[in-house]
Amino acid sequence: MNPVRTPLLTDLYQLTMVQAYLDAGMTATAVFELFVRKLPPGRNFFVAAGLETVLRTLEDLRFDRDDLEWIRGCGLFRPGFADDLAELRFTGDVHAIPEGTVFFPNEPILRVTAPMPEAQLVESRLVNLVHYQVLAASKAARAVLAAGGKRLIDFGFRRAHGAEAGLLAARASWIAGFDGTATAAAAPLYGIPVFGTMAHSFVQAHASEAAAFEHFAEAFPANAVLLIDTYDTVAAARQVATLAPRLAARGIGIRGVRLDSGDLDALSREVRRVLDEAGLDRTTIFASGNLDEYRVRALVAAGAPIDAFGIGTSLTTSADAPCLDAVYKLQEYAGVARRKRSAGKATWPGRKQVFRMVDRDGGWDHDVVTIEHDIQPGTPLLDLVMADGRRLRPPEPLAASRRRARDQLAALPARLRNLEDAAEPYGVEIAPALAALAQEVDRMTDAAVPPG
Amino acid sequence: MNPVRTPLLTDLYQLTMVQAYLDAGMTATAVFELFVRKLPPGRNFFVAAGLETVLRTLEDLRFDRDDLEWIRGCGLFRPGFADDLAELRFTGDVHAIPEGTVFFPNEPILRVTAPMPEAQLVESRLVNLVHYQVLAASKAARAVLAAGGKRLIDFGFRRAHGAEAGLLAARASWIAGFDGTATAAAAPLYGIPVFGTMAHSFVQAHASEAAAFEHFAEAFPANAVLLIDTYDTVAAARQVATLAPRLAARGIGIRGVRLDSGDLDALSREVRRVLDEAGLDRTTIFASGNLDEYRVRALVAAGAPIDAFGIGTSLTTSADAPCLDAVYKLQEYAGVARRKRSAGKATWPGRKQVFRMVDRDGGWDHDVVTIEHDIQPGTPLLDLVMADGRRLRPPEPLAASRRRARDQLAALPARLRNLEDAAEPYGVEIAPALAALAQEVDRMTDAAVPPG
Repeated sequence: MNPVRTPLLTDLYQLTMVQAYLDAGMTATAVFELFVRKLPPGRNFFVAAGLETVLRTLEDLRFDRDDLEWIRGCGLFRPGFADDLAELRFTGDVHAIPEGTVFFPNEPILRVTAPMPEAQLVESRLVNLVHYQVLAASKAARAVLAAGGKRLIDFGFRRAHGAEAGLLAARASWIAGFDGTATAAAAPLYGIPVFGTMAHSFVQAHASEAAAFEHFAEAFPANAVLLIDTYDTVAAARQVATLAPRLAARGIGIRGVRLDSGDLDALSREVRRVLDEAGLDRTTIFASGNLDEYRVRALVAAGAPIDAFGIGTSLTTSADAPCLDAVYKLQEYAGVARRKRSAGKATWPGRKQVFRMVDRDGGWDHDVVTIEHDIQPGTPLLDLVMADGRRLRPPEPLAASRRRARDQLAALPARLRNLEDAAEPYGVEIAPALAALAQEVDRMTDAAVPPG
Repeated sequence: MNPVRTPLLTDLYQLTMVQAYLDAGMTATAVFELFVRKLPPGRNFFVAAGLETVLRTLEDLRFDRDDLEWIRGCGLFRPGFADDLAELRFTGDVHAIPEGTVFFPNEPILRVTAPMPEAQLVESRLVNLVHYQVLAASKAARAVLAAGGKRLIDFGFRRAHGAEAGLLAARASWIAGFDGTATAAAAPLYGIPVFGTMAHSFVQAHASEAAAFEHFAEAFPANAVLLIDTYDTVAAARQVATLAPRLAARGIGIRGVRLDSGDLDALSREVRRVLDEAGLDRTTIFASGNLDEYRVRALVAAGAPIDAFGIGTSLTTSADAPCLDAVYKLQEYAGVARRKRSAGKATWPGRKQVFRMVDRDGGWDHDVVTIEHDIQPGTPLLDLVMADGRRLRPPEPLAASRRRARDQLAALPARLRNLEDAAEPYGVEIAPALAALAQEVDRMTDAAVPPG
């Protein structure tokens, strides 16, 4: 069983429902849409991410021998269900908002149109993939907006929630505008630039800090970034200043130093002065240590002479908002629009499109959510990307998603660029055609359900 | 490249340090310990989890052809480094606190004793595995304490941070005392009981709610749990009451109903009355929908007639505390104890043991952290579990870890069992022998580092 690919990465009820659908012949076309119900506090927008991983999951959907053996032996399903699953592939269509696009609550970012059993089965894993990547990309975009052009590196693998989260955070943050990641596997898997310095243990393992610095610089003559806060940051900067001419005589440069604790504003200024006085004005200062977008903003605003920031745990766990109200809801079955009306969880029915409306100056004014064929004057955000289970285009290079995110963040209205709630949130209007469809669906449901 | 097993699931700096260590012949024995620096707000203890996944990672440590190809081609390492890595295996020792054990801040739960390159390389993935499983087990234990014996099921795969988080949360919450999970793959992978009901989409896809209920009950004649909040919860309960005798005549029982929205206390009482009046007193009520340990506690305290709770996103993301200050720090190298003294991040040096001291009644009084051979009267928590890269015992069955957690939670002092900060936190004392070692290490370091 492949623990990343198995279709058993789903809630059991998806499998029980699939059996029930197959038994009743309920294999007509279902339409599900994935959207986020609301913004977490302090957030003004989301960044779409994860589509490529969704398409790959759908392309690869198949039950392998181990999966089927469990289905046969677990005692939960009828005989023969495993044989049905052995044949199951994803044969449907996918519409989606491209990765790197800014979007807002209640806007569908993914639509799956497929025979009911297929569309139902994939719900859990699709939400799992998209929820986390949107979460990480949206968190990363805040740091990008706060950093004012300074370099940002993802340092958060170790406290990400498992291996896949670490990898997907590297991917999502790179799309959102980070300059790279420390997670080595993200380079071969996604082609993302990787960066690394040294750890405190390296310094501690040596007889002295100076010996550790010299040794590391010799090992990486062009690239060494020395960690200088293990004992006393400013004293360590002086050691770097003393060491540098000796190394330079041997053709070895010191690319940078890293501060990982203490008052980063004050320390960066002292370290900069020590380095500059030693003629090391090209040696950069890298800062890390419990950073998030708020601390980056404060350090940038204070004018701290820091060239790059490593952001770790706060990024990969999206620590201030570790989850979104992301859902995948049935919008239509067998040609009839549907909606859920549970208390506080009602949804808009039908196949939908999102239009982004611009003002006379080309700025984003508001979005309109409407039914698919109710064409509005703005730019439609959802595209058909997979038909009959096949991609319409090759995978989008990550760099293209990253360029899109850059352009989208540049176009984001000024009031949404802060780290705090905008006084006036971005407008997402429900078009009259969609409201009318919802009313019609309710009338039909009320006719079918006896009054409470 | 195996995205779950590759040793490139690490920070790049581990690889650069490994190269530097190998080049300098710094392959003497290093001792690293993994611990959590402090409790998040509202938390009074941690639950150990993840050891088995750590041991498997260490046993399986090897660079495959794809990994080595990247090392060779990435331009970051010296020629020949990939050949060194091709030979690398984990040959060290591991001491650990067993899974399911309650522990506290600054207590090492894992110690790795190995040649420096091996011990360093695995840091990122070991922290990644242990941090998240401790996080999830500790969060789950709170719900177990709050539920007063009612059944708890993990419903959180879809908003867990990726696939591995979803699987490890199922594992960790089961250890902590949950009764099972909805994540299907957790059954074949870990042997955890799986549970499932139905989704709103199933109801919506049918012409009527009654038709959906009947269809699902027919498909799962002994096990059907019907979701009754899609339109009107109490009306749906009445439909269940109407349907039940007809189904019973055909030998089909309705095992339970699920509420997923609205005022769960009030609705559960109304639904219970409707079911009881129809003679369905054995049909259970299952509740879900944005639940966490606080809401479970409130519902239990109110006496809501709910038999089982599904806890989702709040569990798998540990939403109120999505990260811990978990670190893996060098404590000794080449026979000499080491410590880090960075501002606010100083650590206790040397190989350590934790002793749990009990009072005259056998209750937990406090813990003592000391150097390895400073035997104290209490129970030592760390055991040798791997020597020279080989396990000393077969993998512990998950059920044994779960029994240990049950016993540990039963022994937990009453003041630590609440969901809020205890007025008096559990005591973790540093033994004089350890304090003396720290002073000695500082004297040696001060002698080696010129004053700032």
